[in-house]
Amino acid sequence: MADRVIGAADLEARLAGLRPVGLSERGTNRLAWTVEDAAAGEWFATQAASCGLLVERDGAGNRWALPEGDGPWWAVGSHTDSVRDGGAFDGALGVAAAFAIAAAAPELPLAVVSFADEEGARFNTPTFGSRALTGVLDVDDVLARRDDDGVALADALRGAGVAPEGLREAPAALGRLHGFVELHIDQSRELEVAGAPAGVVSALAARLRARVTLRGTADHAGTTPPEDRRDALAAAARLIVAADDLRAAAGAPLRTTAGRILVEPNALTSIASGATVWLDARAAAPDTLDTWLAGLEAAATALSATTGVAIAIAVESRSAGAVFDADLRARLRAGGAPALLCWAGHDAGILAARIPAAMVLVRNATGVSHSAAEHVELTDAAQAATMILRMMEDLA
Amino acid sequence: MADRVIGAADLEARLAGLRPVGLSERGTNRLAWTVEDAAAGEWFATQAASCGLLVERDGAGNRWALPEGDGPWWAVGSHTDSVRDGGAFDGALGVAAAFAIAAAAPELPLAVVSFADEEGARFNTPTFGSRALTGVLDVDDVLARRDDDGVALADALRGAGVAPEGLREAPAALGRLHGFVELHIDQSRELEVAGAPAGVVSALAARLRARVTLRGTADHAGTTPPEDRRDALAAAARLIVAADDLRAAAGAPLRTTAGRILVEPNALTSIASGATVWLDARAAAPDTLDTWLAGLEAAATALSATTGVAIAIAVESRSAGAVFDADLRARLRAGGAPALLCWAGHDAGILAARIPAAMVLVRNATGVSHSAAEHVELTDAAQAATMILRMMEDLA
Repeated sequence: MADRVIGAADLEARLAGLRPVGLSERGTNRLAWTVEDAAAGEWFATQAASCGLLVERDGAGNRWALPEGDGPWWAVGSHTDSVRDGGAFDGALGVAAAFAIAAAAPELPLAVVSFADEEGARFNTPTFGSRALTGVLDVDDVLARRDDDGVALADALRGAGVAPEGLREAPAALGRLHGFVELHIDQSRELEVAGAPAGVVSALAARLRARVTLRGTADHAGTTPPEDRRDALAAAARLIVAADDLRAAAGAPLRTTAGRILVEPNALTSIASGATVWLDARAAAPDTLDTWLAGLEAAATALSATTGVAIAIAVESRSAGAVFDADLRARLRAGGAPALLCWAGHDAGILAARIPAAMVLVRNATGVSHSAAEHVELTDAAQAATMILRMMEDLA
Repeated sequence: MADRVIGAADLEARLAGLRPVGLSERGTNRLAWTVEDAAAGEWFATQAASCGLLVERDGAGNRWALPEGDGPWWAVGSHTDSVRDGGAFDGALGVAAAFAIAAAAPELPLAVVSFADEEGARFNTPTFGSRALTGVLDVDDVLARRDDDGVALADALRGAGVAPEGLREAPAALGRLHGFVELHIDQSRELEVAGAPAGVVSALAARLRARVTLRGTADHAGTTPPEDRRDALAAAARLIVAADDLRAAAGAPLRTTAGRILVEPNALTSIASGATVWLDARAAAPDTLDTWLAGLEAAATALSATTGVAIAIAVESRSAGAVFDADLRARLRAGGAPALLCWAGHDAGILAARIPAAMVLVRNATGVSHSAAEHVELTDAAQAATMILRMMEDLA
């Protein structure tokens, strides 16, 4: 038994069925509660059937492939949703690997899970499914959110066959788990630099997402003198620069990104009346985020005074990070895999607050992710999956 | 005869028919070659019929209301298209006033014209119709342009019943004109400050529009270390700030605006792989624009070196400005109206390069334009229209 290993060819065969779902020349688009998401669910069901597992969907829309009986089980998995124009491995690799592990060790009490809307790309609701499962999702808040087309999350859920009322019952599914292990593409070059095919995450960085709303006045781009302008895009540009300068001056590990901006009316000859900028910030320590946010608030106040543009900063989500289970980490690192701090948010980090959880990352030569260019070697992924298989054999 | 005047009620009655076309709570949306544009054409035809004028559309899609015969005529008019979320007076007021003048003086050789796509809001093709009429439109270049939905201008023209091949024949319609006079809402507070209901434009400012394309790399917002990022939105923000700082330091009359930005993938947790920023710059003197643009090129080169983002600046349109006909200006100012430098582009400025042309502006208390909030008092507009009527009587 101890010589069983996961093969790269097995992973490739499983991934091949999911890869075309939502794929275009710009990348993978499998946003939550879309037709592409439903197609990923069909792939999940086919995989489950091939492993002799029973498919179930919990109240949050998380997909489960379960052995017969009531558990308890060790859950292994990740997610199949993607960011806009994302890559083929983020999330998908972890679910495919979980099926490979379950197929290799049918006698073990293993459940495969694919968490709903891990990326949160459509409604700004990252780790939606794992938050619902652990009872920390603010259900009233998220149900009212709307996507860029004005669709409410509650309606998107109904369209995907998930009853919004079920979100409050989702935590009932947590009690049947021993713990959770997630395999994921490394989203940095850290393992590449270390020369290791796989690594074990010690902790997730603290993070926050803020939405900055700027209100100016629409006016003619030519005829309005500089002193009469209240230019929301000009102010937004200065705020983005301020956020980046504050990051560079932080003196502690901090990464910030302005990834998204919407401007009104966004026209060639009109001064912008409005702009909304979304900022993502992550730090090894939560107080680094506090200091950065305080600096940003001060910069916004000063900018408002000089530009006449009203600026409001709303923190949309926040996490103090997560530390993974020491025993699981030690077991996973038994073969010598390096320990890592992870800068991304993951479902495993959400679950770590409630049950034993761990994460294994797979080497990424370029570090590129959230992009069509993201890539892992499946021989590396197979080694990482085998680390999880070995631990599960030992725990059984 | 010399006592005829244009009445505010007449202007209101004419504008009332056009105002609902493309109106929403955010403003007026009558972009070129759309269904709203066609509805404006129906209004134009109704107005022409009420004045006993014959409707004709030239090869560029400009709408004409002509007396019987072959001319030559004096043309009076403006445009009925708008920017996105624009106002009720920009362009529309000038066409309504032209019909009021033609109706008041049916014996005069007056043609009414509504120029196609003056704003250029959809294809970045400002003063499209007047450029085509004067033979300075780069037909091959514009026909290939696409709007935000990917529709080619050539197809949009066909959809609106305008044969793209006709663009090259449009200049034939120019020979039948003595000259052109445009009435327009003031887009500054200059007349309000001067306490004058109307003013006469001496010259139009020089201007250029540039499209800045920034190419970075899509990557994960959390896991990519600062030194590995090629963040197109971060670079775009710094370039917008640089453009504004160069403007402030110019030491000569200069107005610049970044009014429009598109970002890819524009997602919360992705570093932007691409950004496109459109800049509008206007100056009293063309060499002020040259200096600003050279500074911007240098800033882009420096920014590219520090950020790894490739930056290309393309000048999409450029004008040295225009000086209006001295005789027409003197006639229009006979009643004491002030002379103005105009910072906006106008069809009259394009025509001024080929035929005698003039422009009368109407007081705007707030200076706001290109916005639902733009407003003129029609008693002021009626005085401005009467100035044109009086000049036409004198020229006859």
